[in-house]
Formats: sequence, structure tokens, C-alpha cells
Amino acid sequence: MATLITLLTDFGSADSYVGEVKGVLLSQVHGAALVDITHQVPPGDVRAAQYILSRVWHRFPQGSVHLAVVDPGVGTDRRVLAASTAGHFFVAPDNGLLSFLPADAHFVGLPIPGGAAPTFQARDVFAPVAGQLALGAPLSHVGHPVTDAYRSPLPAPHHDGPVVIGDEVEPGVRIQVGGTEIGTLSRTFGDVGRGALVAFVGSGGTVEIAVRDGSAARRLGVGVGAEVRA
Amino acid sequence: MATLITLLTDFGSADSYVGEVKGVLLSQVHGAALVDITHQVPPGDVRAAQYILSRVWHRFPQGSVHLAVVDPGVGTDRRVLAASTAGHFFVAPDNGLLSFLPADAHFVGLPIPGGAAPTFQARDVFAPVAGQLALGAPLSHVGHPVTDAYRSPLPAPHHDGPVVIGDEVEPGVRIQVGGTEIGTLSRTFGDVGRGALVAFVGSGGTVEIAVRDGSAARRLGVGVGAEVRA
Amino acid sequence: MATLITLLTDFGSADSYVGEVKGVLLSQVHGAALVDITHQVPPGDVRAAQYILSRVWHRFPQGSVHLAVVDPGVGTDRRVLAASTAGHFFVAPDNGLLSFLPADAHFVGLPIPGGAAPTFQARDVFAPVAGQLALGAPLSHVGHPVTDAYRSPLPAPHHDGPVVIGDEVEPGVRIQVGGTEIGTLSRTFGDVGRGALVAFVGSGGTVEIAVRDGSAARRLGVGVGAEVRA
Repeated sequence: MATLITLLTDFGSADSYVGEVKGVLLSQVHGAALVDITHQVPPGDVRAAQYILSRVWHRFPQGSVHLAVVDPGVGTDRRVLAASTAGHFFVAPDNGLLSFLPADAHFVGLPIPGGAAPTFQARDVFAPVAGQLALGAPLSHVGHPVTDAYRSPLPAPHHDGPVVIGDEVEPGVRIQVGGTEIGTLSRTFGDVGRGALVAFVGSGGTVEIAVRDGSAARRLGVGVGAEVRA
Repeated sequence: MATLITLLTDFGSADSYVGEVKGVLLSQVHGAALVDITHQVPPGDVRAAQYILSRVWHRFPQGSVHLAVVDPGVGTDRRVLAASTAGHFFVAPDNGLLSFLPADAHFVGLPIPGGAAPTFQARDVFAPVAGQLALGAPLSHVGHPVTDAYRSPLPAPHHDGPVVIGDEVEPGVRIQVGGTEIGTLSRTFGDVGRGALVAFVGSGGTVEIAVRDGSAARRLGVGVGAEVRA
Repeated sequence: MATLITLLTDFGSADSYVGEVKGVLLSQVHGAALVDITHQVPPGDVRAAQYILSRVWHRFPQGSVHLAVVDPGVGTDRRVLAASTAGHFFVAPDNGLLSFLPADAHFVGLPIPGGAAPTFQARDVFAPVAGQLALGAPLSHVGHPVTDAYRSPLPAPHHDGPVVIGDEVEPGVRIQVGGTEIGTLSRTFGDVGRGALVAFVGSGGTVEIAVRDGSAARRLGVGVGAEVRA
């Protein structure tokens, strides 16, 4: 019987993020059955994520792994929390998302390898831990072998137009999108205040624009391929 | 080969509803393959649901079970309709949603156990009937054993802030959200007119706010965790 | 192990299109595991589709088939492009969507049978080619047997109200929706300019209203079942 892995994030369904996480899980756990709970949690709303997961998890069969990544501190050195109770397994940031679990649940806190390295942690850290649990690793053993095995390099982007969101740029240059000044490249979301625009180098060495705990696309009215002035 | 169950609702993809239904189906039918047709049917728009399902079902292989829950009368004592034709199976409210099926299809109307009890019927009634069909039960036998087996109690919500949507409240108290007076708790959607705001005790004993045939979140500008004055 | 097929389109998740494609794939490839990358690509935005797919495909296990249909020239006689590289397979319109693939990838261009026939090509042409690859057909053999096998006729729509979107109408009549004059029925999207409203007879002989590279529903404020004056 296929292992069930449920997914709950605030990534939305419009870009590549959820697909990247699913690809990693299916490469690691052959034949896993993935179930989307939702990817529409309001950005960074840990309480909403906690509420939704608390209503859902116990409906699934025992042995299910529930992967939930909603974190206003994404990119900081927040730990990964792995947990188990009543035959279910959980992987989430150590930010209160799993606080609905009963007091006698088992918890393991894992440091994020590389700390706040500018990587896509849901794909490179959280998903591999969920995959280990889905493959039957005991809770006390997960995390140790979280290596770079699933951090394969992205192919270089191909384009022949102006510099756009998604392109490779030099760290440190000042960024402007759609007439809005973003500032210099940040290392992580944690560097800026809530609601602030931030430009950072994504896991593939390409520039990404985000609003901490919000939607940059909505705020700037731009999307993938929009022109960036550097 | 895994049993195929397709899902079509007006629940949206932003909260726990679809996940709860999927959890019940996967607990009942191990290894079932779930396929989302859409969860974006306009709220209560039975005609749109009927149109979409009529274009889709015959593309799937024989033996598929099609579960469609769109009903402006949700929470009333509308019957469940189970049907079969051309090797396909259907479960939907008895509100015209399945009227596109040919005249020689087989239909069985099932009373909803407990009548208009304040439960989440898609999860507690419709999904278990679809699960029975997916497990091979003959059309004439489904419904009889729809018991409380899948109505496991929700864990008590954990919070330490003010009373919010999702919390447990006393039935009968008057409810206010974001400055808008909602009135006393209703028993079902059927108690109020189309477009009216309604507060009711959800299946887990927690307060839920809804617009009959609309989006309360959009109307009130609030979401899970919003403050409620009771 | 189930064959993996990933899906990436600009169809949105609100109507029957994605479900029709999935039904065809699951009828052709029993037990296939379908993974949605996204269906929210901005309408006709080939560059966004290319960017998203380029970030995702290599995360999936070898043997995966990636079906991507985003094309502003939908309904024209654009070829189907099938490709393989690094143990992965791809099916997309021959419009640059696959230009991120390495130069040493294998490509096969397939004419669309029937040319620009008013059919739903993602369901009737692209999905069957992806299905052949998922079933193990060599790249050099796909396309040949793309017949009408998966073009089963739609059941006649049932309704008793006024003429609405989705109904059968005579080609050539002038169409009006919500007070907006659309003009006579077109044969394909290619007949009209970007952003222009177009009415055409869909694959099931029913009238469909669209904006080339945009959302007719948003522009006209109507949906399935809206009244059409012919």
C-alpha cells in the first residue's frame, strides 16, 4: 500500500514551489500518494495552518505523514520539528504550528543543516525529513542524513530579453521592479520587517522578489518574467 | 488497480473541508486514487456543477466513483442520491445535480441519518456512501451501514487568545464579527435566506460563520482565527 | 510502480478542462499517478510556463512524463512537440515552451491530426501522446496512432431554460453575452487578435465564449449557465 503524505503550505498554487516539493518526495518515496490539504494558507499565518491541520490529520489512516510548512521566519535558522502521535507523523517548522498535538506526542527538534542558507527549505530540508518518516525511519533517527542529496543544481535559465524576475543577478546590486525600489539583495526573509518588500537570491541562484508575509505579485502587479532593473 | 474517486465541490481549496473528505475516503478505501475535478464551483451553483460533471465523468475509466457535493440546501434534510450508469457510479445531493444522467441510469435515494443534524455531511454522509461504492457494494446496499464510524470526535482546540472563529461557544449567544452583527447561532444553512450571514456550530462543536450561497470570508474580510464577539 | 505524469496548464481549476484531460490519461494509462504542477499559468504566458517547468521537472524521478499545455495559438495548426532527456519525457506545443531543455535532448514534432479542427486539443491530442510515452512507446513512435479513440462524443446537454453558455447553437449566428456583442462564431482562437472576445463551437458542439489570452469570465462577469443572446 502506498504511503500517504499530506501537504499543507502557504505557497499558493501558481508557481513552481509545490511542484518542486512533490518532485523531491516522489523521488525519495517511490509510489507515495500525495494529498494536498491546502496551499492557500494566508502567507505566514501559522495559526490558520495549525487550525486546518488540527481538523484534518486524524481523518487520514494511521501511518500517514503530514508535512506542513507555513513560517513567517522562513529562511531563518528555525528548527524542523518532527513528531508522532496515534500512529501519525508530522513535519513542520518549530514555530507553534504543531501545538495542537496532545502533550504525550513524541517530538524531535532538528537543526536546519547550513542554518539560514539561502535555500528553499521546504524542498531541501522539510521534504527529505518527511520522506524519511514515510520510508519508515524511526522518529529518533530522522534528520541525521539530511544531506545535499536532494539539492541538485538547477539548469541555467535560458533567455534573450531584458533582465527579469527569475534571472541570475549579482548579489548586492539594488533592485527595482515595476517602478518600485526594492533595495539591495537580502539573505533571508528574516532580514526585513513584516510586509516589507525583499529581493533575495533563490536556491537556484536566481533573483526572487517577495513581500514578507504577503504577496509580492499582488503588491507589484507583476509575475514571473517581469522586468527587473538592477 | 486502485479505485478512482473523483471529487467536485463548491468548498474552495483554502480550508480544511476538502482535506477532511479525502481523509475519510482514504481511511475507508485504502489505496484509492483521488482526482479533483474542481472545488471552485460557485457556492451553491448546482447547474454549474451539473454542467462540469456532465462533461467529465465519461472520460474516466469504468468503475470510477464520482462524488459531487454542491447544495444551497446544505444542512437541511435533502436526501443523498446514489446512481450508476455505463459502469460509472455517482453520489450527490438529490437536488438535480445528477439530472444529466441518462433516463435508464439506476438511482437510489438515501435518507440522511440524523436528518439535518449539524454535521459536515460531505465528510460524514456523502463520502462514506462513495467509499462503499468504491469498495464494491451494490447500489441497492449502500447507505444502510452509514453509521458514526467515521465521525470521530475532534480534539479540543488549543488557544490562549480572545474568542475567534473556530472556537467553541455556547449555542444561542449573539455573534459579532469584525463589527458586523450576525445574530444568534443557527442550526443549519436552511434557516436563513440566500446571501444572509449565518453563524452555526460546526461538526466539531466550534463556531463557523458563513454566507448562505456566498463567501463569508470575502464579505467580512476575515478568516480562520478572526476575532468573534459573543 | 505507477507511471508519473505531471500536468502544467493555463486552464485554471474552476471548470471541466483539467478533469477532462485527467480522465483521458487515466483511461489510457491505468493506475497512472497524476501530479498537478500548476494550472494557474497566466493565460497564454509561454515564458512563465517554461520557467516553472524548468525548475520542476528534474526533481521528479526518471521515467516521469511532463505534459505542459500553454499556447496563445491554441486551436491553430501548431505542432505537438514530444521530447526526452535524462530519462524524462515531455509533451508540449511547439511554441518555445520546451526551449529550456538541453541541446542534446531528443525532439519529435508531430502534426496535429485534423489540423486546427475545433477540438479540445489538450484532451484529444496532447494527452494521448503523453499517455503513449507513459505506456512506454519509444519517442520515435508516438503520434502515429493518435486517432479518434479518445474523442468520445459528449452527451447532449440537458436544460429547459433560456439559451446559455454551454448550449448548442447554429454556427454563424451573432452572439451577445451580458449586453456585450461578441460577433459571429469563430473557428479558432487564431482568428482573432490578442485580448479580443471570441465565440466558438467547442468540442462537444456547444458554444463557448473566450478572450484570446485572457479570462472571458472575468471580462464579462459571467460563468457557466450565463444567458447568451443568439
